[in-house]
Amino acid sequence: MSENKIPYKIYLSEEEMPKAWYNLRADMKNKPAPLLNPATHQPMTREELDGVFCDELVQQELDDTTPYFEIPQEIRDFYKMYRPSPLVRAYCLEEALGTPAKIYYKFEGNNTSGSHKLNSAIAQAYYAKKQGLKGVTTETGAGQWGTALSMACGYLGLDCRVFMVKCSYEQKPFRREVMRTYGASVTPSPSETTNVGRKILQEHPGTTGSLGCAISEAVEVATSTPGYRYVLGSVLNQVLLHQSIIGLECKTALDKYGVKPDIIIGCAGGGSNLGGLISPFMGEKLRGEADYRFVAVEPASCPSLTRGKYAYDFCDTGMVCPLAKMYTLGSNYIPAPNHAGGLRYHGMSSTLSQLYDDGLMEAISVKQTDVFKAAEQFARIEGILPAPESSHAIKAAMDEAMKCKETGEEKTILFGLTGTGYFDLVAYQKFNDGVMDDYIPTDEEIAKSLEMLPKVD
Amino acid sequence: MSENKIPYKIYLSEEEMPKAWYNLRADMKNKPAPLLNPATHQPMTREELDGVFCDELVQQELDDTTPYFEIPQEIRDFYKMYRPSPLVRAYCLEEALGTPAKIYYKFEGNNTSGSHKLNSAIAQAYYAKKQGLKGVTTETGAGQWGTALSMACGYLGLDCRVFMVKCSYEQKPFRREVMRTYGASVTPSPSETTNVGRKILQEHPGTTGSLGCAISEAVEVATSTPGYRYVLGSVLNQVLLHQSIIGLECKTALDKYGVKPDIIIGCAGGGSNLGGLISPFMGEKLRGEADYRFVAVEPASCPSLTRGKYAYDFCDTGMVCPLAKMYTLGSNYIPAPNHAGGLRYHGMSSTLSQLYDDGLMEAISVKQTDVFKAAEQFARIEGILPAPESSHAIKAAMDEAMKCKETGEEKTILFGLTGTGYFDLVAYQKFNDGVMDDYIPTDEEIAKSLEMLPKVD
Repeated sequence: MSENKIPYKIYLSEEEMPKAWYNLRADMKNKPAPLLNPATHQPMTREELDGVFCDELVQQELDDTTPYFEIPQEIRDFYKMYRPSPLVRAYCLEEALGTPAKIYYKFEGNNTSGSHKLNSAIAQAYYAKKQGLKGVTTETGAGQWGTALSMACGYLGLDCRVFMVKCSYEQKPFRREVMRTYGASVTPSPSETTNVGRKILQEHPGTTGSLGCAISEAVEVATSTPGYRYVLGSVLNQVLLHQSIIGLECKTALDKYGVKPDIIIGCAGGGSNLGGLISPFMGEKLRGEADYRFVAVEPASCPSLTRGKYAYDFCDTGMVCPLAKMYTLGSNYIPAPNHAGGLRYHGMSSTLSQLYDDGLMEAISVKQTDVFKAAEQFARIEGILPAPESSHAIKAAMDEAMKCKETGEEKTILFGLTGTGYFDLVAYQKFNDGVMDDYIPTDEEIAKSLEMLPKVD
Repeated sequence: MSENKIPYKIYLSEEEMPKAWYNLRADMKNKPAPLLNPATHQPMTREELDGVFCDELVQQELDDTTPYFEIPQEIRDFYKMYRPSPLVRAYCLEEALGTPAKIYYKFEGNNTSGSHKLNSAIAQAYYAKKQGLKGVTTETGAGQWGTALSMACGYLGLDCRVFMVKCSYEQKPFRREVMRTYGASVTPSPSETTNVGRKILQEHPGTTGSLGCAISEAVEVATSTPGYRYVLGSVLNQVLLHQSIIGLECKTALDKYGVKPDIIIGCAGGGSNLGGLISPFMGEKLRGEADYRFVAVEPASCPSLTRGKYAYDFCDTGMVCPLAKMYTLGSNYIPAPNHAGGLRYHGMSSTLSQLYDDGLMEAISVKQTDVFKAAEQFARIEGILPAPESSHAIKAAMDEAMKCKETGEEKTILFGLTGTGYFDLVAYQKFNDGVMDDYIPTDEEIAKSLEMLPKVD
């Protein structure tokens, strides 16, 4: 094992790190559908978006032709503090499974935020700072994004106001405390501090909140407070652009050793990691230079790609955000309370939705008990305690590796290990205690939730 | 900043990783005092120790002349999963402090156990497995060591029984859950499962336990259960031997860039990190090849080096372990309940105690509110949320850097960043809420605790 030429972990040098983000949309024949104004159903203009997002981020959001955006030096310096992330050859996992497959994973959890979210958080905070803003607002569910943004803002001296889904706020006091340590203010959502929060509380007293709710509150504060803008950790084109650093590093590392993956697997919630991981590889496929299988893995309890509808939908509960065309389960869809696996968003990045609709990417869904079983196995073999989100990809990668064992094929599998599970131990405890179960929504439930779709011609 | 030749993080390649541990004792003129049989006060023989520890570990424990021990290939393979750990040049911290000092830290927290403890855990578990044992027992306080041992045992398929100090067991359910995820059984100590536990509970009903208590229970189970041995995460010579990997990697990394540290700083509880970090540098000093300043940093609430006595003492509360000569506060010493900074052990590694007594190393103590203040500042500037333990070294390193700012000296400071604080957020919350305070024991308290020292001629 140790004589193998490929090391356990491939680290790029600072010089080898990407100097530009890759904009996948530039190579897409069918571009992702534009965001629409929720009132007029006309494409959002740059001016309309400028009130919500920072100027340069709006430019990145709307540009679907420029293939590369240079990464500003200040962001590259920040990246150097925690990147390059290691590309790991899973020798131990291969041996434990007895598979002829070669398994690689890109580990994005080796930073205090515990996930890949920091890649876009520092970019968004940087542009806000550059524009002379005082601060940013955002929402967070499980807390990965809120933590990442707090770190980025703490580093740049920018005010950071986080609306945290109330049930997470109460169940994950430690996530909250990390954000506070980085200087962020954290408010449980829905709250009495916004109009939309008060309205939701009046209509649903005692609600424990949802991501859609928290987005509405964060957007309201950003658009009504001078010197503030809203930032978001997934779904948006700009986020996928920043996250392309994941895939670009992977590709450089694999190219150094002449390795070409057959299958590329990523977990899929809003699409930030998956979109970033696959981007340079998908670019090659779109340009006809190479072919790969891409697999999106989503939870069976929140199956937007595999069971949702491709349509324009609201991005938030309060319906204050632009409409996005995406695979969606309806903006009111909330996974069952027993769902502990993350990836809870009702929709999927427009870019990934378009690629999926064009048949360029596959999607599967997996049950959470299977996900946690794979997570525990992985933790014991590879030493890393994975986030539940990431474990969706682990489960799919292990299944593919076992298929190779049956067929004898020596496929090369690459998956994204997006983060660590240090703040998800309530979920692990449920699994360890044998009290975790699965929930799969009925067709009727999904159909009912989809009744709320806006009527867009 | 980015033009500097030294990268933000220096990673060794797999080929550059150390192939042998360095045994500092081989170069010590005054050897550390031997362990004594608590009944006869005679040096413990190999045969006596064989009942407690694995055979090869006993050999490592007693050998103070062999300078290098080859690291078995299986352990080197495991090391490759999470090592080499990065040696970080703290460019951002230097800039924020405005100091001419050059600051480096060796970051040992980039693994699921969250600390350097894994370096010795895998070694001890490996030798137990090699000897054909069924399992190992141990104690854990804050939980870093227990987590590390669980990971090592999970990887090797070895049974792992952890006695966890009861107050930690209750306050840190997530630590407990990580250990369970890795397959360990975790028992709150003192427990009804051992004679010594029942005795302590009878004498001190309602006690929330101590490290000394948990050690006694773990040793009792190991010595009374066929196929089991006891393992320990600090204090012992064998642990310092395994932890020498920290210092060896540091030295190789610094040598690559022609950097020689002036000051080497480590936090000090039982001495596992400090001993490992300084070992190759101290070796040079002992051999007269180079000179360095070494600084041990301990909590003001548990000041064994700075205010303890250099004497033979019990290692555990139940007095079942061998006696060790060390700087000690007395085996009944327990830091005040408000102490949240870790490093709670009453004594200090015999090796480090001897070096300190010989004037080869300095020691200082710091107050925990100052430690957390430094921790928060560091987190925001360098991005890493440090463990409270590690933050003692951060505080001292920042103070040294500020002295350089006053004098204009461009000193090179190296410190050990032993771990991350993901499981210490109750303590951070206290600090964030402004309700953390300091406790410094009075001379009378320490004198009273030292009355319990055994009478050794």
